[in-house]
Amino acid sequence: MVYPFQDLLSEVRSIHPLVHHITNYVTVNDCANICICSGGSPVMTDAEDDIKGMTPIANSVVLNMGTLNPRTVEAMVQAGRIAKEKGVIVVFDPVGAGATEYRNQVAARIIEEVRPDIIKGNSGEISFLAGIKGGVRGVDSTSSSDNMADIVRETAKRFGCIVASTGKTDYVSDGKDVYILRNGDDMEGNVSGTGCMLSSVIGSYAGACGAKAESVVAAITAFNIAAEHSAKTCKGPGSFKVGLFDCLFNLTPAEVSAEAKFEKV
Amino acid sequence: MVYPFQDLLSEVRSIHPLVHHITNYVTVNDCANICICSGGSPVMTDAEDDIKGMTPIANSVVLNMGTLNPRTVEAMVQAGRIAKEKGVIVVFDPVGAGATEYRNQVAARIIEEVRPDIIKGNSGEISFLAGIKGGVRGVDSTSSSDNMADIVRETAKRFGCIVASTGKTDYVSDGKDVYILRNGDDMEGNVSGTGCMLSSVIGSYAGACGAKAESVVAAITAFNIAAEHSAKTCKGPGSFKVGLFDCLFNLTPAEVSAEAKFEKV
Amino acid sequence: MVYPFQDLLSEVRSIHPLVHHITNYVTVNDCANICICSGGSPVMTDAEDDIKGMTPIANSVVLNMGTLNPRTVEAMVQAGRIAKEKGVIVVFDPVGAGATEYRNQVAARIIEEVRPDIIKGNSGEISFLAGIKGGVRGVDSTSSSDNMADIVRETAKRFGCIVASTGKTDYVSDGKDVYILRNGDDMEGNVSGTGCMLSSVIGSYAGACGAKAESVVAAITAFNIAAEHSAKTCKGPGSFKVGLFDCLFNLTPAEVSAEAKFEKV
Repeated sequence: MVYPFQDLLSEVRSIHPLVHHITNYVTVNDCANICICSGGSPVMTDAEDDIKGMTPIANSVVLNMGTLNPRTVEAMVQAGRIAKEKGVIVVFDPVGAGATEYRNQVAARIIEEVRPDIIKGNSGEISFLAGIKGGVRGVDSTSSSDNMADIVRETAKRFGCIVASTGKTDYVSDGKDVYILRNGDDMEGNVSGTGCMLSSVIGSYAGACGAKAESVVAAITAFNIAAEHSAKTCKGPGSFKVGLFDCLFNLTPAEVSAEAKFEKV
Repeated sequence: MVYPFQDLLSEVRSIHPLVHHITNYVTVNDCANICICSGGSPVMTDAEDDIKGMTPIANSVVLNMGTLNPRTVEAMVQAGRIAKEKGVIVVFDPVGAGATEYRNQVAARIIEEVRPDIIKGNSGEISFLAGIKGGVRGVDSTSSSDNMADIVRETAKRFGCIVASTGKTDYVSDGKDVYILRNGDDMEGNVSGTGCMLSSVIGSYAGACGAKAESVVAAITAFNIAAEHSAKTCKGPGSFKVGLFDCLFNLTPAEVSAEAKFEKV
Repeated sequence: MVYPFQDLLSEVRSIHPLVHHITNYVTVNDCANICICSGGSPVMTDAEDDIKGMTPIANSVVLNMGTLNPRTVEAMVQAGRIAKEKGVIVVFDPVGAGATEYRNQVAARIIEEVRPDIIKGNSGEISFLAGIKGGVRGVDSTSSSDNMADIVRETAKRFGCIVASTGKTDYVSDGKDVYILRNGDDMEGNVSGTGCMLSSVIGSYAGACGAKAESVVAAITAFNIAAEHSAKTCKGPGSFKVGLFDCLFNLTPAEVSAEAKFEKV
């Protein structure tokens, strides 16, 4: 099947969307840098008074619950609400949902009170949100259901948003169609925060091209092809991460078109 | 014109100044590492009780408002005041001034209550501080005035400190002379936090060599020549950043002297 | 002397221990990534409500006081207590003990209230904990006693735990034996957070192989041999850090066995 979304890459670089992040303090620097390499302009801020000024001028908001505390949870809810009022797209990454009761409660609250436009998690997190007892250990998924395509479609329908589940195979659905994506490299699992980084790239694509399944598909595909490129020459997780930035920055629409592994069901 | 400040590089390495940072959680690791590569010894701490012990023994304090919250704003003001009482040099980077009302207020408060010795921002931030409606989007500058030389001189005069404005061309003034610096590489704009890192390098140079325009000129020039060196062999933003640390660490006074692009007006 | 602990490396990779970190915001990303490269599975969280769910399922907890604030100090004490109740191993890195009164108090409180299984610091920090006026400037050690072997043995005896002191030579004791380790490279001193990273690697090894001197010896030796490997091809601190991840990830038990510099006194 011909991959039809390669041009979104150029669109992101041309629009250069402002992506407001409230994210964890572990991988925040990598999120900022991968956002730049994808074509976006990242800004990180979580102070109540600053959010008022920053969220309304952003193209998208990425809420990532990798590390939480009471102050930043309120900041996420506040930024999410302002975004929805102002028509700014909200991407939510429920990191570690399913691992602790606290994370479960925060994820439920953000979905309920913010109504994100896009939810992206690993297969364990998405399975948990779908009501399936998924496998999440720490912040890593330990299992993947055979029927993830159905799970993402049903979850998207239920929450009225785009849902993406990542893993060896990635699934994206708007509640009707499901896109199945097969790019990527196992080395991604050896770097902390590749999931967070992907959410930032989705923030860029959705911020530039809209909250639609195609934006998410294009973001995941670009990120995963860059990972494949980096894996070819890396010597381990350290050089793989460095190369991931380089390769996403240098990725061309023609490469995306030629290398995307993609089907729609 | 012969570049007269190349020896400051050796002075920083010999004195190995302790640079106390209160900075943002996005680029803090890069700030610590570039500080080391410039010859300094970084320490990051923002707890009220810890500042009392740490600030007085530092050679300089770098206050960077990349990410703010009420607790860290108070910490910045507290550390800044202690520094000024004890004769410790204060470098202030008003990240995102002009972008939100909150940042404008914090920047104004720090300038008013701390009276920094050195203020370094991008051209949009410095223009904003100068009272000119500058272009700041998120935390990035979107415009540069034709008369930045005048703007930095006037701002330095007004605040009674050294002012540096960075961009394609950099300007440093003590309120009388203006130094115009033309080193650097466009790739710097593709890495999050190069501005923050430069403030840390200024912290090293000012901590070792004093709060004078020459220290700031030498810091910016060293950083930007290192950036030029790294850009020559990098494959993108990831490897550029890695190389920036290597190249600043390996930079020699002879290279600075030979490669500095510098004029004084 | 034949190095007998090379197989612990395989054990860590096979058990893949969950290492819960409450650490500083400066080097946290490097801690997560080096933990992965050593064979562990890192999770970082410091919210009171999240700790309740996360600490009990971890194999070890790493408490690192690189950056402190009142909220995270309480989180460290809470996580440490839960860990001890549940039999989860606690590794404590008293970063900057000896540098400020605040850090001294927090270190004393954690040792008193948590009773860590393993304490790892640089020679200045460990000397300070031993009651010797050590040299700590910022968060870096500036001195090393001639009798560090005695100091670590006595400190281990006094606190009833494993104590490791790092520097040009590393010392590990359980209060009886002292292991003297001579691997490593000076370049480690040019990267911020190599000490923090090492504590995370100790968290992996202790989490997988138990709170014994052998785990700590194996962790330090693996880390330092990886540093030697990286130093061979690096061009400076930037590429050294990247290579450190790669080299620890690729390290084999045979290499550890052949290259370990080790004696027991």
